Amino acid sequence: MFNSYGHLFRVTTWGESHGPALGCVVDGCPPGIRLSEADIQPWLDARRPGQSRFTTQRQEPDAVEILSGTYEGCTTGTPISLMIRNTDQRSKDYSDIAASFRPGHADITYHLKYGLRDPRGGGRSSARETAARVAAGGVARAVLGRLAPAVRIRGALVRIGAHPVDRAAWDWDEVLRNPFWSPDAKAAETWTGYLDGLRKSGNSVGAVVEIIAEGVPPGLGAPVYAKLDSDLAMALMTINAVKGVEIGAGMAAAELTGTENADEIFIGDDGSPRFSSNHAGGILGGISTGQDLVARFAVKPTSSILTPRRTITVTGEETEIVTRGRHDPCVGIRAVPVGEAMMACVILDHLLLHRGQVGDAGGRIG
Amino acid sequence: MFNSYGHLFRVTTWGESHGPALGCVVDGCPPGIRLSEADIQPWLDARRPGQSRFTTQRQEPDAVEILSGTYEGCTTGTPISLMIRNTDQRSKDYSDIAASFRPGHADITYHLKYGLRDPRGGGRSSARETAARVAAGGVARAVLGRLAPAVRIRGALVRIGAHPVDRAAWDWDEVLRNPFWSPDAKAAETWTGYLDGLRKSGNSVGAVVEIIAEGVPPGLGAPVYAKLDSDLAMALMTINAVKGVEIGAGMAAAELTGTENADEIFIGDDGSPRFSSNHAGGILGGISTGQDLVARFAVKPTSSILTPRRTITVTGEETEIVTRGRHDPCVGIRAVPVGEAMMACVILDHLLLHRGQVGDAGGRIG
Amino acid sequence: MFNSYGHLFRVTTWGESHGPALGCVVDGCPPGIRLSEADIQPWLDARRPGQSRFTTQRQEPDAVEILSGTYEGCTTGTPISLMIRNTDQRSKDYSDIAASFRPGHADITYHLKYGLRDPRGGGRSSARETAARVAAGGVARAVLGRLAPAVRIRGALVRIGAHPVDRAAWDWDEVLRNPFWSPDAKAAETWTGYLDGLRKSGNSVGAVVEIIAEGVPPGLGAPVYAKLDSDLAMALMTINAVKGVEIGAGMAAAELTGTENADEIFIGDDGSPRFSSNHAGGILGGISTGQDLVARFAVKPTSSILTPRRTITVTGEETEIVTRGRHDPCVGIRAVPVGEAMMACVILDHLLLHRGQVGDAGGRIG
Amino acid sequence: MFNSYGHLFRVTTWGESHGPALGCVVDGCPPGIRLSEADIQPWLDARRPGQSRFTTQRQEPDAVEILSGTYEGCTTGTPISLMIRNTDQRSKDYSDIAASFRPGHADITYHLKYGLRDPRGGGRSSARETAARVAAGGVARAVLGRLAPAVRIRGALVRIGAHPVDRAAWDWDEVLRNPFWSPDAKAAETWTGYLDGLRKSGNSVGAVVEIIAEGVPPGLGAPVYAKLDSDLAMALMTINAVKGVEIGAGMAAAELTGTENADEIFIGDDGSPRFSSNHAGGILGGISTGQDLVARFAVKPTSSILTPRRTITVTGEETEIVTRGRHDPCVGIRAVPVGEAMMACVILDHLLLHRGQVGDAGGRIG
Repeated sequence: MFNSYGHLFRVTTWGESHGPALGCVVDGCPPGIRLSEADIQPWLDARRPGQSRFTTQRQEPDAVEILSGTYEGCTTGTPISLMIRNTDQRSKDYSDIAASFRPGHADITYHLKYGLRDPRGGGRSSARETAARVAAGGVARAVLGRLAPAVRIRGALVRIGAHPVDRAAWDWDEVLRNPFWSPDAKAAETWTGYLDGLRKSGNSVGAVVEIIAEGVPPGLGAPVYAKLDSDLAMALMTINAVKGVEIGAGMAAAELTGTENADEIFIGDDGSPRFSSNHAGGILGGISTGQDLVARFAVKPTSSILTPRRTITVTGEETEIVTRGRHDPCVGIRAVPVGEAMMACVILDHLLLHRGQVGDAGGRIG
Repeated sequence: MFNSYGHLFRVTTWGESHGPALGCVVDGCPPGIRLSEADIQPWLDARRPGQSRFTTQRQEPDAVEILSGTYEGCTTGTPISLMIRNTDQRSKDYSDIAASFRPGHADITYHLKYGLRDPRGGGRSSARETAARVAAGGVARAVLGRLAPAVRIRGALVRIGAHPVDRAAWDWDEVLRNPFWSPDAKAAETWTGYLDGLRKSGNSVGAVVEIIAEGVPPGLGAPVYAKLDSDLAMALMTINAVKGVEIGAGMAAAELTGTENADEIFIGDDGSPRFSSNHAGGILGGISTGQDLVARFAVKPTSSILTPRRTITVTGEETEIVTRGRHDPCVGIRAVPVGEAMMACVILDHLLLHRGQVGDAGGRIG
Repeated sequence: MFNSYGHLFRVTTWGESHGPALGCVVDGCPPGIRLSEADIQPWLDARRPGQSRFTTQRQEPDAVEILSGTYEGCTTGTPISLMIRNTDQRSKDYSDIAASFRPGHADITYHLKYGLRDPRGGGRSSARETAARVAAGGVARAVLGRLAPAVRIRGALVRIGAHPVDRAAWDWDEVLRNPFWSPDAKAAETWTGYLDGLRKSGNSVGAVVEIIAEGVPPGLGAPVYAKLDSDLAMALMTINAVKGVEIGAGMAAAELTGTENADEIFIGDDGSPRFSSNHAGGILGGISTGQDLVARFAVKPTSSILTPRRTITVTGEETEIVTRGRHDPCVGIRAVPVGEAMMACVILDHLLLHRGQVGDAGGRIG
Repeated sequence: MFNSYGHLFRVTTWGESHGPALGCVVDGCPPGIRLSEADIQPWLDARRPGQSRFTTQRQEPDAVEILSGTYEGCTTGTPISLMIRNTDQRSKDYSDIAASFRPGHADITYHLKYGLRDPRGGGRSSARETAARVAAGGVARAVLGRLAPAVRIRGALVRIGAHPVDRAAWDWDEVLRNPFWSPDAKAAETWTGYLDGLRKSGNSVGAVVEIIAEGVPPGLGAPVYAKLDSDLAMALMTINAVKGVEIGAGMAAAELTGTENADEIFIGDDGSPRFSSNHAGGILGGISTGQDLVARFAVKPTSSILTPRRTITVTGEETEIVTRGRHDPCVGIRAVPVGEAMMACVILDHLLLHRGQVGDAGGRIG
């Protein structure tokens, strides 16, 4: 439970930054879905660091291996074990990190909780763990491609520091053209200069990621505790460094009046329900409406910075620490494919849950 | 699973707005804790609507009954069944609501998912469900009072619409003196006039609630999926009408640099670790640091408003709807004790989980 | 988790023998199923004690109330809360039982585990808890009646002490004609005299219950851990006083050779697979074959007997104890409807799980 | 959930007979426990087939690799990933098995459930899956060695076909001296001849395994659904080919009277409770008494036999099948270390659960 998520489509991840490998077990996958490494690898390639100067220079091929759960290129319904070998574990002296706690890192809490920790590359708290989620998301996407082919999940970076994108300029094609997943070419330009400055000064900055899923069938979720939005919130909050999660209007819903907020309903040209707006982010009462699912999350700035920070040692003395190494000036950039993967897993999980509980007993309109 | 939360301290709620009763089963409660209705009722009384003109005028005594799990005033370790009778179910004509979908409500999603719904008072999606959570939170508080007596959980309303509180004026005593749980007397004044206007015009508005837990032991939570923050995010997002959840700096973390964000560590006068700030909201790497836990959530404006809104009927015709009835101009007000209750349940759950996995093997500093 | 069973169709029970009530919450029930108290009460009536001199003389109407989860006589998909009031809690002096531990009872283990216990009528360990399961089983049967109407679940007592039934004489109609659920009229006669003797001498005896489910669709279950047989074994072993569980040939499978044991397969007149025998009890590799599900369980003799037994007190002194009160000479008799209920819940749970994971992707033969 | 077991100490297994590897993820392991491959390998070596002519001649080194969750030879509290490579997958023609269903095997149910199956060596239903459990059991034993060093878990084969051991001759040392795990040297002799005959005639036979855990602390388990015995029953029933599970007196409890069955209690020389007998198998009301835990399970005869059996093909024609290959005449023999491993996992899981819910609030006697 500590390292699993999902109800029916259940993912258990394992692995540390500098162990021999990391991976996950995907349980509850429907059978008869075409699946090979080639269906998963592209998502890992998209997440892979070292592809621009704005992400960590750690070079990992992140080649995924399917160790179980498929036969002749199809899922069999049994657990799918995915493994990614760690190859770029530079031999490095971790004695500094082992002796002191880096501010903003999990060093101190792991120590206080477990009495020991693996200091190499952050151990389990490394962003490398997200590779396993992206791999699991690849499986989820393959299944969605078969069970709900209209579903399309895309993410974008919508803010770095004080610099948001211009939503009027949103262009999904642009997202793939710049190293930031920015839907706005101008913002990407601004960010380039801004991040170059931060990188040179050994600083870092936070970001906001937005994930949108189109084509989600209505009726996914449940009224109170396995809500589609609460499961999404949990899934996104489990990503390293995330400090806030929003659905639809999000925190800004607090500033709306009832007349502004409630999305009016009418009948579309195809005879099915349409909404005048999407403050709900595609979810009402914990259940999908059929509108786009819209989720956002804030990623804090990387805590590994070159500026010296006050801290303490394991033995209780005050000291200063500088975190050298291969770090991202804005770790939020790499979180985009991770957020997409979590969205894919949550949607599929709820699709299976809904099919299990309700089957085809759902309601029609008209 | 659909209606349960928690790993070891597990709460399953049930009940609709206009059924005979609602309640919950609290499983996994430690034995030997003093517990009677008198320990739970005050929290329900604080949540109860109808106490000011700013919350729904529905009058319910919300008297809790303990049906199992205690003997001679002590918990026995067996499941605690809590029941609250519904007494103020006004006979009312629900045919309008049954035939059409109120914008912003769960009407349409329940219909699409289940093929039928209980239209009386919103059925399961009613804010009345939160009474069960508050009752469960009362049990959690009683247990925390014994196992972690330093824990103190308090909530406040920190924003209504465009009107935030002045954090420099924060006064916990004030919270109990105004009908808004405002920590700032001036904000309460502002809100009084603002909400009176909204109420008269049949409109509503959103709000932000902040919950702070002091005295939380370090080491609660887990690195990746049963994170203290992801469990909190899920728990708070399950509350009706919540659209965003933040931990510590929250969404604003995106606008901070690494030097601003990372809370520096030093040794306090008592020889234990202290932090120069609390952007982390008391959680690093999913595990509590010993600082105050700080969580916030945005509650959207009540969708039940007197202004006519466009909508559709079950049979697919376009129409207009006005939601009459006893509704809150700002449902966020009543969410404060609910957020406190969820915080209490999550903290206790993680306290028990930590005790189970780690016992007293945690680390010391110095 | 301590008091719940099932994956998707999930039942959480609560309540003690002498508290105000007991009951359960049934979560994950499909929507749109006709359900009222009248669908559940007959199963409770069948289980009710006090109907013959061979079961405890405690008189409880065991009237079930549905407190949530239905609207206009149909399930809504939200949690169904079922409550049964305890009405026949005789005022009695429990000081003996509170001070000493009855051999064979849970008194000593509850004390050692929890540090306290509710001594009134056995508290949570009372066979009264099974009323909640039978009520949940009534819900499961109502759903199965809609989703898998061919399923028919029946139980019988197949052994009391040294006296088994004659399987050659098996007659399901006879089961309803005698107070023992015996499928063999002669065995019922034998048992009458045998139990009268035991009852008069203040002794008790064990029994074996057999539950058979016909019409179970093939494909329910999973290969390794959510096996249909392992879930059945767990479910039946949770019934009070059960010490052994068998599927198909059961323990006797150890005495068979491979040629004797493996059920040969052929094509039936209707073109679908048939088996020459059913040593498998309808389950191969954890998954249903389409044959009858056959499960058996042994119920130990009631430990509450009038013969004095050596025991110890809470303070550690040796003593003797006699358990007076309204006890069954053969508690196994009342376990028949309980076993049926557990079978119904497990089958429905796996039907929903299978629908969730696999949908209609299962294989055909021919 | 389909491939996981345990509540807090949670094991998820994966892998097929003829895939590249199999393994498991062990989640919830306490930190700070010394653990390396050398702690796990001996248990795998004991289980390994091919060590006598009475088990399959498949030769696998079954070398376990720890891929995560330890640092400098100690568990860190993060998930432990264990992998065992499959090395002896003989290239073989599986077209027969792919086209027909072997009686007694999971072939037909996998096909009906999933629409496809991996026919190579039984795929997921292969007994090779149990290697992963034995590895997990090795982790559990390492933790028990630290948290409950008095616990000693041992298993024995107590029956093959019509030939039980003589319990009067029980000798634990003998268990390690013969290839059957027989505690009775004479029985081992009898079995040698009996199995040689079966093997030569291409037949097989069932067996009964008994697992005994000494030194289990009292208080583990829970009253109704997470009972120690129901969790044991489930765990043991998940082992391939198991058809019956017993605790203490087991099915024979049905033949006992109350005076015979209830274990009387007295005070031992050391002042703690003792019992005159152990019909309860160390569990009362779902909770451990402190006596030896005693569980037994029946393993059906291998269905892979050389005698031709009637069956059908995937396309629905009747045919005959002979299962050639490297099979065990008595697969029960290899189940002994598997049963021990499951017992170890269940005990540790309940130890952690108990520590989580109750801590040190348990009761004392005297």
